[in-house]
Amino acid sequence: MSIVTRREQMQSFGHENQPAVAKISGLAVDFPARALPRTANTAIVYCEGNFGAIDGKTANGLVRHSEKYEILSVIDSEKAGLDAGIVLEDTPNGIPIYRDLAEALAFAKNLPEYFIFGMAPSSGMLSTHERGLVIEAMSHGMNIVNGLHEFLNDDPVFAAASLANNVTIVDIRKPRDKKDLRMFSGKIAEVTCPRIAVLGTDCAIGKRTTATILTRALNEIGVKAVMIGTGQTGLIQGARYGIALDAVPSQFCSGELEATIVEAFENESPDIIIVEGQGALSHPAFSTSSFILRGTCPDGVVLQHAPGRKNRCDFDQMPMPTPAKEINLIETFSDTKVIGLTINHENMAESDVSSAITGYEKELGIPVTDALTRSTDHLVEMVLVSFPQLRKKSAGIIN
Amino acid sequence: MSIVTRREQMQSFGHENQPAVAKISGLAVDFPARALPRTANTAIVYCEGNFGAIDGKTANGLVRHSEKYEILSVIDSEKAGLDAGIVLEDTPNGIPIYRDLAEALAFAKNLPEYFIFGMAPSSGMLSTHERGLVIEAMSHGMNIVNGLHEFLNDDPVFAAASLANNVTIVDIRKPRDKKDLRMFSGKIAEVTCPRIAVLGTDCAIGKRTTATILTRALNEIGVKAVMIGTGQTGLIQGARYGIALDAVPSQFCSGELEATIVEAFENESPDIIIVEGQGALSHPAFSTSSFILRGTCPDGVVLQHAPGRKNRCDFDQMPMPTPAKEINLIETFSDTKVIGLTINHENMAESDVSSAITGYEKELGIPVTDALTRSTDHLVEMVLVSFPQLRKKSAGIIN
Repeated sequence: MSIVTRREQMQSFGHENQPAVAKISGLAVDFPARALPRTANTAIVYCEGNFGAIDGKTANGLVRHSEKYEILSVIDSEKAGLDAGIVLEDTPNGIPIYRDLAEALAFAKNLPEYFIFGMAPSSGMLSTHERGLVIEAMSHGMNIVNGLHEFLNDDPVFAAASLANNVTIVDIRKPRDKKDLRMFSGKIAEVTCPRIAVLGTDCAIGKRTTATILTRALNEIGVKAVMIGTGQTGLIQGARYGIALDAVPSQFCSGELEATIVEAFENESPDIIIVEGQGALSHPAFSTSSFILRGTCPDGVVLQHAPGRKNRCDFDQMPMPTPAKEINLIETFSDTKVIGLTINHENMAESDVSSAITGYEKELGIPVTDALTRSTDHLVEMVLVSFPQLRKKSAGIIN
Repeated sequence: MSIVTRREQMQSFGHENQPAVAKISGLAVDFPARALPRTANTAIVYCEGNFGAIDGKTANGLVRHSEKYEILSVIDSEKAGLDAGIVLEDTPNGIPIYRDLAEALAFAKNLPEYFIFGMAPSSGMLSTHERGLVIEAMSHGMNIVNGLHEFLNDDPVFAAASLANNVTIVDIRKPRDKKDLRMFSGKIAEVTCPRIAVLGTDCAIGKRTTATILTRALNEIGVKAVMIGTGQTGLIQGARYGIALDAVPSQFCSGELEATIVEAFENESPDIIIVEGQGALSHPAFSTSSFILRGTCPDGVVLQHAPGRKNRCDFDQMPMPTPAKEINLIETFSDTKVIGLTINHENMAESDVSSAITGYEKELGIPVTDALTRSTDHLVEMVLVSFPQLRKKSAGIIN
């Protein structure tokens, strides 16, 4: 098999090319996957039927940004042949989407080190078909990264397959052993740098993306910012500090987050800590943000909102809250202040984004921006206006 | 050994009688516990060093009320020789407190069927000494009821002891298997009877007690009320419907509670459902009430408050919230209304309770009572005023 670049693979691999794809898939039967050398930190992300969609948010996040893995390809038969960047943001990124595991392996130069299960179904469980697929990936010699609520290491079938194939399974969401879970202690009061929580008005609305961009932008101007992940996607992406809060027994949620923040503060001596939110404080099903506010005791909150979203993503009969209502709830629930609003521009034209920014700034009296389509200067300024003591850290870079 | 009543045991068993106690304790060495017949549903409650105190709340609750067990005695060496009712409410109830397991067994007519671990330390874990004690209880042939976060059935040592002694271990807090955990679905909207959540301004403040008294009083006047337990104590007491929410991964908390309420509604066709709260919505560590509000979508909330408590019970530097502030938080967080305030009279003289009732009624404009020291008519009326449609159910009993 000749060496082809991802771009070349993509070019020979459009939707119009189905017979060729089928033929290539057929190769996998004889494909000596175990003979391939494994390349460190490379990964295939499985996201069948969901890439680019809400339940594919782990895959979407990994393709946008990963500190830990080099993403070689995505598996989603419904989008096979497309470039992953085109699906997400209309900008190619050279990561191909394949029909199935066989095809992804047939096109891999080396055996990827990891098979990442990149879907986040709300049940958090593998289907029978998916169980078979994960076992197959292990039989090829790939380690498994699993972000589901189901912990594969606890399942005798997967534990045996892991031993038999000499591969590891990383259960991203698995909390510490019960005896090691930490209760809220109030030690958060000793964290002397400002803490900002990035909350939202709904699930899957861009909280992690905005938190990631904000953290990076602050570091670029000389303000040392550390991000705390609170969901499986951030942890899979390689967040150094984090915990999958939705898998932690509720008794320990505030405490586990508090302890993680204290650890990051003590190890990194950051100028500021950015905490990723989950769901929405007002959400009927996913109000883990209550524990995020309790465990973080944030000095400020950035609120992410999608003006173009009419109903909650998991409850299509339930209208979205207004930012004003969510802000009032957050500021009543916690002794904090919402310092700015960030816009998710889904279902919006460029001009809608501009008028939403102007409109919300006038209505709410706080800065408003879109972390993805506007300069990050606006996002950074949102923080510096509220925490002017950080401005001197950025002296000489911006004023 | 002659048959003695509990009262006689108590009378010969005061604190002034330590040498006799020590001698009786000594008997246990030769005491053929296994030879005793087990009496169905009888139980000894272990609460060393904590009976009557906040961390003994499971034992305190069981001694006050149990639908499931006949409580034969309590173990707490610090209060050995006292009557359990005297310790809790200055009114004897004939349940003796013993120094240790040996003494409790020496005085038991028959072998109790259950050994209940009746402490709720915030860590939720057994100490090394306590592990040994539980094993000893099993070796005598007693089943174990465990309300801790640590699940003894999952521990190979306890699992082996359970098999070897042919006894069972009930891990009260253990949630369903992950695959069976339920997400919030919105099905709560199909529950057509009113739902009341009994929340509080702090932990261990009497929410469960007030909910229990309210449920009983409503049933007595012909309004069919079903209580939903949300903590380990209520479940140990024998609540037919309930779930230990603090042990459930946060992703599933609202959904598990919603499903439990729907189940109770469908099975019982009640006129009203009363849901026990946990912690306080404003609590820095225990804000599981956020999920209770989400999963219940209550039509009304009764708020339990202790005017004589200055600081939160687990955080002695943190002042208690005012009822007005907690009410505002609850009504902002959830589309509901606080219909009344109930008083925990700890640290208060009788006259303080009366003036607190008058004062809060004037300040808050809602009915106020003390479920324990005032007639339950006040508590019932608090509900009937807000849900007048229930008044006809009680026709002929009260008006």
